[in-house]
Amino acid sequence: MPQPAHPFKLYADPRSGNCFKVWLMLGLLDLPFRWVSVDILRRETQTAEFLRMNPQGIVPVLRLSSGETLCESNAILCYLAQWNPHWFPSEPLNQARVLQWLFFEQNSHEPNLAGAHFMTRYLGRAQDDPEIVGRIERGHRALAVMEQRLARHDYLAGETLTVADVSLYPYTGTAPDAGFNLGRFPGIRAWLARLEARPRWLTIAALAASHGSLLDWSKRVLHGV
Amino acid sequence: MPQPAHPFKLYADPRSGNCFKVWLMLGLLDLPFRWVSVDILRRETQTAEFLRMNPQGIVPVLRLSSGETLCESNAILCYLAQWNPHWFPSEPLNQARVLQWLFFEQNSHEPNLAGAHFMTRYLGRAQDDPEIVGRIERGHRALAVMEQRLARHDYLAGETLTVADVSLYPYTGTAPDAGFNLGRFPGIRAWLARLEARPRWLTIAALAASHGSLLDWSKRVLHGV
Repeated sequence: MPQPAHPFKLYADPRSGNCFKVWLMLGLLDLPFRWVSVDILRRETQTAEFLRMNPQGIVPVLRLSSGETLCESNAILCYLAQWNPHWFPSEPLNQARVLQWLFFEQNSHEPNLAGAHFMTRYLGRAQDDPEIVGRIERGHRALAVMEQRLARHDYLAGETLTVADVSLYPYTGTAPDAGFNLGRFPGIRAWLARLEARPRWLTIAALAASHGSLLDWSKRVLHGV
Repeated sequence: MPQPAHPFKLYADPRSGNCFKVWLMLGLLDLPFRWVSVDILRRETQTAEFLRMNPQGIVPVLRLSSGETLCESNAILCYLAQWNPHWFPSEPLNQARVLQWLFFEQNSHEPNLAGAHFMTRYLGRAQDDPEIVGRIERGHRALAVMEQRLARHDYLAGETLTVADVSLYPYTGTAPDAGFNLGRFPGIRAWLARLEARPRWLTIAALAASHGSLLDWSKRVLHGV
């Protein structure tokens, strides 16, 4: 698969693990892209211009070289996997095993881990807020489901890396910051270390570190689009 | 694609729209299957036997003729689409457009519409419970996103039916029972009527009607598995 004719544009907020996922995937595949910063807390996802790109008013959004846009981080990962089809197999059962983890991520994992993370870290809500307590409890249950798999296998959906691992990495990796205890999940900790030891793997700290210099540049791009 | 060697087994609760999705898909494709009843409210999804099939402890689960099991309703729809590949295209961008709606369903639509439905109808909670009010508000926002698409197109992800329509149908169709107002969404109402006019389309009322006779038979199957 040749590289795209023009760089992708990734409309994203560096505080979002869903955005980080796509940034990580683009980096793993060494695909050219430009980061366009969209500040969630300043409600830049709610402007008329942004809502034309994504009526849901959420990041990330990927603009393709054709000008078309694609939303939903996990759908974007599957789309980008055309540049490494091993990461999203086309055989129906193997593909369904990957999709199973991606839907688990969006329904059982991300709402709890990302929710708790966002509320405590960016909205300053207390750890004993009942809403956060509930998310932490349900998030630990989601982590226990991952642990069952990762106690016996190196990767989530198969015996090698797939987009399921890319998708589940961000909010699992930052779980301790959001009040989750990975101490009782040795399989998950080994999997995190295994991923981070891979060539070209990027952490959310790397995203945060690069964000300062990206921000000014991308603000100009955003307003010049 | 030849039919499977043995009928599928669908472990499901007829009160669940996620289970209904898979039942509808099997019916649309005329694939042989047996319904194995699992009662959510009696916590039959939490038995050791069930948790071995699905550590998440949720329905639906599809048992393939090989004996392997597959979880997550939307992953199951994509798997079954091998019997009608038009419903889940393999071309990456068209496929990503379908996946975008499936992830939207699991993250923004189902938690609100199914959550409100389950809490009011099966747990008997009041419509003015703050938890339900929040879900109804967020659910209406998800419906507004669908309306934007369906006001101008006949189907969600392309110009013909895909698994995105199968996936979004159940909880959109039952939304009025859960306190949602479809009055301001004419595109959605036309889409529901369009789907229900298709050959072999099944409604949740049809599932409820067939469930009485299925129940006794499937209880025997469940305990004989």
